[in-house]
Amino acid sequence: MSAHRLRLRFVPDGTEVRVPSGTAVFDAASWNGIAIDSTCGGYGTCKKCKVRVLSGEVAVSDVDPRAFSAAELADGWRLACRATAGADLVIEVPPLQTRPKAALAGVGRHVILRPSVQKRHLVLPEPTLEDQRSDLQRVLDAIDDLEPEPSLELLRTLGATLRSSGFDVTAVVVGEELLDVEPGDTTARRFTIAFDLGTTTVVATLLDLDSGQPLAVSSMLNRQQPFGADVITRISATMLDPGALELLRLRASETLAELTGEVCDEAGVDPAEVYEVTVCGNVTMMQLALGIDPEPLSMAPFVVSTHRLPPARASDFGVEVHPRAPAFVFPSIGAYVGGDIVAGILATGLTRDRRVRLFIDVGTNSEIALGSSERVLACAAPAGPAFEAAQIRCGVRAADGAIEAVRIAGEELSLQVIGDAEPIGICGSGLVDAVAELVGCGLLDHSGRFIPDDVAAAAHPGLCERLTMIGKERVFVLHWRGEDPAESVFLSQRDVRELQFAKASIATGWQILLRELGLEPGDIAQVLLAGSFGSFLTPASAVRIGLVPKLALPRIVTAGNVAGEGAKIAALSARERAEAAAILREVEYVELSGRADFNDLFIDQLSFPG
Amino acid sequence: MSAHRLRLRFVPDGTEVRVPSGTAVFDAASWNGIAIDSTCGGYGTCKKCKVRVLSGEVAVSDVDPRAFSAAELADGWRLACRATAGADLVIEVPPLQTRPKAALAGVGRHVILRPSVQKRHLVLPEPTLEDQRSDLQRVLDAIDDLEPEPSLELLRTLGATLRSSGFDVTAVVVGEELLDVEPGDTTARRFTIAFDLGTTTVVATLLDLDSGQPLAVSSMLNRQQPFGADVITRISATMLDPGALELLRLRASETLAELTGEVCDEAGVDPAEVYEVTVCGNVTMMQLALGIDPEPLSMAPFVVSTHRLPPARASDFGVEVHPRAPAFVFPSIGAYVGGDIVAGILATGLTRDRRVRLFIDVGTNSEIALGSSERVLACAAPAGPAFEAAQIRCGVRAADGAIEAVRIAGEELSLQVIGDAEPIGICGSGLVDAVAELVGCGLLDHSGRFIPDDVAAAAHPGLCERLTMIGKERVFVLHWRGEDPAESVFLSQRDVRELQFAKASIATGWQILLRELGLEPGDIAQVLLAGSFGSFLTPASAVRIGLVPKLALPRIVTAGNVAGEGAKIAALSARERAEAAAILREVEYVELSGRADFNDLFIDQLSFPG
Repeated sequence: MSAHRLRLRFVPDGTEVRVPSGTAVFDAASWNGIAIDSTCGGYGTCKKCKVRVLSGEVAVSDVDPRAFSAAELADGWRLACRATAGADLVIEVPPLQTRPKAALAGVGRHVILRPSVQKRHLVLPEPTLEDQRSDLQRVLDAIDDLEPEPSLELLRTLGATLRSSGFDVTAVVVGEELLDVEPGDTTARRFTIAFDLGTTTVVATLLDLDSGQPLAVSSMLNRQQPFGADVITRISATMLDPGALELLRLRASETLAELTGEVCDEAGVDPAEVYEVTVCGNVTMMQLALGIDPEPLSMAPFVVSTHRLPPARASDFGVEVHPRAPAFVFPSIGAYVGGDIVAGILATGLTRDRRVRLFIDVGTNSEIALGSSERVLACAAPAGPAFEAAQIRCGVRAADGAIEAVRIAGEELSLQVIGDAEPIGICGSGLVDAVAELVGCGLLDHSGRFIPDDVAAAAHPGLCERLTMIGKERVFVLHWRGEDPAESVFLSQRDVRELQFAKASIATGWQILLRELGLEPGDIAQVLLAGSFGSFLTPASAVRIGLVPKLALPRIVTAGNVAGEGAKIAALSARERAEAAAILREVEYVELSGRADFNDLFIDQLSFPG
Repeated sequence: MSAHRLRLRFVPDGTEVRVPSGTAVFDAASWNGIAIDSTCGGYGTCKKCKVRVLSGEVAVSDVDPRAFSAAELADGWRLACRATAGADLVIEVPPLQTRPKAALAGVGRHVILRPSVQKRHLVLPEPTLEDQRSDLQRVLDAIDDLEPEPSLELLRTLGATLRSSGFDVTAVVVGEELLDVEPGDTTARRFTIAFDLGTTTVVATLLDLDSGQPLAVSSMLNRQQPFGADVITRISATMLDPGALELLRLRASETLAELTGEVCDEAGVDPAEVYEVTVCGNVTMMQLALGIDPEPLSMAPFVVSTHRLPPARASDFGVEVHPRAPAFVFPSIGAYVGGDIVAGILATGLTRDRRVRLFIDVGTNSEIALGSSERVLACAAPAGPAFEAAQIRCGVRAADGAIEAVRIAGEELSLQVIGDAEPIGICGSGLVDAVAELVGCGLLDHSGRFIPDDVAAAAHPGLCERLTMIGKERVFVLHWRGEDPAESVFLSQRDVRELQFAKASIATGWQILLRELGLEPGDIAQVLLAGSFGSFLTPASAVRIGLVPKLALPRIVTAGNVAGEGAKIAALSARERAEAAAILREVEYVELSGRADFNDLFIDQLSFPG
C-alpha cells in the first residue's frame, strides 16, 4: 500500500521533499519546516497561503477562484492548502507576511507552531431593527478568515454572553468548531494538554499555545494497575467480569483527571482555558479509556475496533477542561502497533527521512518499525515481561534500589544503582547489561548457558564465586546481602532464558521487516530505541545480546519518550496531525503471528551473537 | 437576496423548472417530482444518479471521474447530485433502474420517498490473520454505495455485536452517519417521527420509512401551557425566574416523550427502531425546547440565536427513540417567522409555484408570506390574542360548546357549535364570522361601531333586541342564557375592536409585502390560510372583514396544518430538507416594527371593507 512518492522543490529556499501523491502542498511544506502564511490553519478560508506553481500541474481548487484573478490562476498561483500534488512540482513560496509565532524542536525535528485553537477578539456592532442578523451570524461575520460551526451548547448561552459583555467578546475556534464565545478580550490565554496514556505511566504536559512552551509536566502510575501490569491481564479482567470495562474506563479517567488538576494548578491555568487535548497510547489503553470492548484485541486474529477513532472530546476521557474541548487521538496501525507508535513515528520523522532507520519501542509488547521516506513497515513482537521485571527472579521496577547498569572489567564487577541506594533488585536495563557483560566475559556461552564451574574458575578467578546455585538453579550473584545466595540480588539461568526469548522475538521482528524490504542489517543508518524502557538501555549491551543489529554505537540512539513528544507535536500543530493520518495510510503492518518463517528465524535469534 | 433563477428542462419527460443558480440538478429534479436513480440519497457515493447534459455547461465534479470515462464526460454525462446548475440547462434523465419505492401527496405536492435512514443487511467474512481489517472497516467495506461515519458510542459495542451475531448484521445509516449495527436482518423495520411542536398543541406522526405511510398520530396540549398561553408570556417567565428556562425545556421534553410513547405503542414499534425525528415549531418553541436563552426574541430588535441550528439529536429534545437518532430541525427566517412557517412554505410549495400566492398563518403572532418561484417575502404581524380567545369577553378555546360559525340570513341568526352542545362561548372563527355577518347586515358600521339602537330597530326588527348594553358597553347577544345579557354569550364593542386591531395588523402585513413586490391584490392567484386557527376560518368572512384580499372565494383555501405536513415531508425525504435550506436563503424577511409606513397603512386597515 506504499503510495507513489513525488518530488516537491520549494524556492527560493531550495528545500526538496518527497511526499505521497495527493499530499497538500501546504502540508508538504509545513512538515518540512517551510513556513507558508496562514491564519485559518489550512481550511481554505483565510486565503493567505498563496504559492506559485513554477513547474508541474496543479488543478484549480474550488476555493482558488475566490482568491485569485483568472490571470493569476493562469500564472500558476494556487492556495497551498487546497493544492494537492499529483506530479513532481517546483513551488515558489512568497516571503512571509507574518513570521510563525514560535517553533519547537521535537526529536531532532523542527515544528512550526500551528495550533488548531485560535482566538479572535471581536467588538461587534449591537443589533438594530436594520441589522437583525442572528447572534451567531454576527459573530461569524466578524471572523472573516475562519468559518467555524457552533454547537448547540454554545448557542444556549451565546445571547446572554453577547449582551452581558456589551458585544465585546472573544471567539474561541478549534479546528472547524466555534468552541466558545467568551466575554472581553481573552486572546492572550489558550492552553492545551498533551497526554501520554501508557499502560504503566501516564504523563500530562500543559502547553501554552501562544508561545508553544510547556508550562507544567506531571506523571503518575496508571490507576488501572490493580487490574494487571500489562494489557493482556487488563483485557482478561474485562472478559471475566462484565463490569470491569466500566471500572477500567473510570480508572483511566481518574488518572487523566488528576494529572489535569496537577498541571493546571502548577501553571496557574483555569481548566476552562484548556480548549483541546491530544492523547496517545496503545490500542488497549485507548479502547479501555473510551469504553470500547477490547476482547477482540486479545486473541487471534487481533482485530482493532477502528484504526481511526471518530471525533472525541476531552470529556469522553473524563478530562474536565473546557466542557466541549475536542480530544485529538492518534490513529493506530494494528492491534499492537497503536497510536503511541504513530506518535513516536511522527516525533522521529521516520516516514520522512531518507535514511533507513529502525525504530524499536521495547516493552512487554515491543513495536518495531523499519524504513525511510520511501517505505516503512511495522510489526509487533510479543517480547514477554522480561523487560518489565515481572518474570525475573530479582526483577524490580526502575526505581530507587534497582540495578540499572552492570559493568565487568577484568575481574571487577561494578553496579550502577538508581538513587545510589543499596541494591534491592534489577530492572530491565540492568538485566540486559548483566547478560551482555556475562556473555562478553564468557561466563555465559553463546547459547545462553552459564559455563561449567571449573571453566569459570579458570577463566575468571575473581568472579567465579558469584557463579553458584540456588536450589537446583545456577545463578550469578550481582550483589551479596549476607552469605546465602538466595538473599542476594542475582541473575538466574531462567532469567537469562526469559531475556533470550524476549530479544529473539524483537530480533525476529526486525529480521522479517528487513527481509520484506529486501535489506541487510548494514543498510540501517540508525536505530532508535524508544519507550520508557528502551530509553535506558545501553546501546553496547543491546548490540551484544543481539537485540539490535550490530552497528557502530553512535548509530544506536536512545530516543526517549517519543510517544509523549509526538503528542506534544500534535498539540502544537494541527498540520502535524495530518502527517499522523498519513502515517496510518503509509506504514504497512506486517503480522508476525502465524507466519511460516517466524519460528525458524526465532530459533536462530535465540542465541547471542558471536 | 433573491437568487438569480435558471431554467432547467428535463427530457424525455419535458418538465421545465426554475431554480436558483447553484442548485444541484438532482435536487431540482427531486423537488419537482422527477425521479433520478439514487441509493445514497445524494451524497455522491452510490454513483447511480447519472444524467446527460444536452445543452448548457456543467463543470466536472471531483466524483464524476470515478463514475464516467473521459469519453462519457466529454459527452455530457454527470452525476446529478454533484452537478450544480450555473446556466440554463437541458438534461436527459435515463429510465429508472429502480422505481422510487413510494410517493406521497403533501399539500397538493408530489413527494418522492427518499428517507435519510437507510439499512443494509450485511453477511461479513469473519476476520483471519490474513484479513485483519478493523471491525469498522469490515462493515464500511461491505456498504459499497455509502460512506458513513460512526460515533464513539457505536464503536463501544460494535465488536460484541459482530461476534455475537456471527458477523450477520444490518447497518443503519442516517445521512452521513453509521448510526448503528444491529444483529441479523432488520431491513424491513425503519421508522421516523415527525413532530409539530406548537405553542398550544403538539402533534407526533409516526411514519414507516419503507412505505412512506403514517402508522400512528397523536396530539396533546404543550405541557408548557402553565407558564403562559403564548410565546411572550413564556419568554417572560424565563426572564423573571432563572430556573424557568430549564423547567420549560423539561416540559417540552415531557410532551414530546409522552407523544413518542403513544405513537410507538399504537403502531407496535420499538422506540429504538425510530432512527430519526423531524421537528418544526416557532423560534421560541425551538429555543425553549433546546434550552437556548429566548430573551433576545422578546424585545426589539428581535434577534434569533441562529437561523440554522447545529446538528441536534432526538435526545436533545428529550425524545427517547434510538439513543443517537438525529433530529432534523427546520431553519427559521426571523424571530417571528420560524421553522413552522418554513415547513408550511415547503408543504405548500410557495417558493416553487409560478403563481403569486399569499400564505397567512393566523394566530397571536401571524406570519405572512407572499410571492412565487420568482421571489417570496415574509413578515410577522403581531395580531394580538383576538384569534385565541384570551382578550375576547366570551372567548373560549375551539372545543365543545364553542360557537365556531355564525350566520345571519334576514332576521335569522344561526349558530354552529362544536360538539352540537349548548354554547358556552365563542372561538376565533366564530368571532370572525360574527363580526363579518354583523358588518354584512349593517349592525356594525365600517368603522367597527355598533349602529345606534334606533337605526338598528328600523333596519333589523328581528335582531335589534340582541343589541343591548352590559354595564357601559354595547354588546350583541349571540346566545341567551336567561334574561340578563351579562349571562349570555355575546360580542362586545371592545371584542370588535380587538378583532379590528388583529385583522388590521395582518392586512397591513400583506399590504406592505404587496408594495415591496410592486403588486396589487388582484395579482394574487391564491390565498392559503394556515395554522390551527386559519384552517377553520370561513373564507367569505375573512374577505368580508378584510383579513384577506378580496378575491373569488375558491381562490381562498384553508390549507390545514401545513407545518405538520412539512415536518412529514422532511421526514420522508432528505432531499426536501435541502429545499427547506433553500427557503431560508431565498425568502426575504421584511421587518414591520419601526417601519415608517406601518402606522398609516395600519390605520387604513382598521375599518372594514366597504
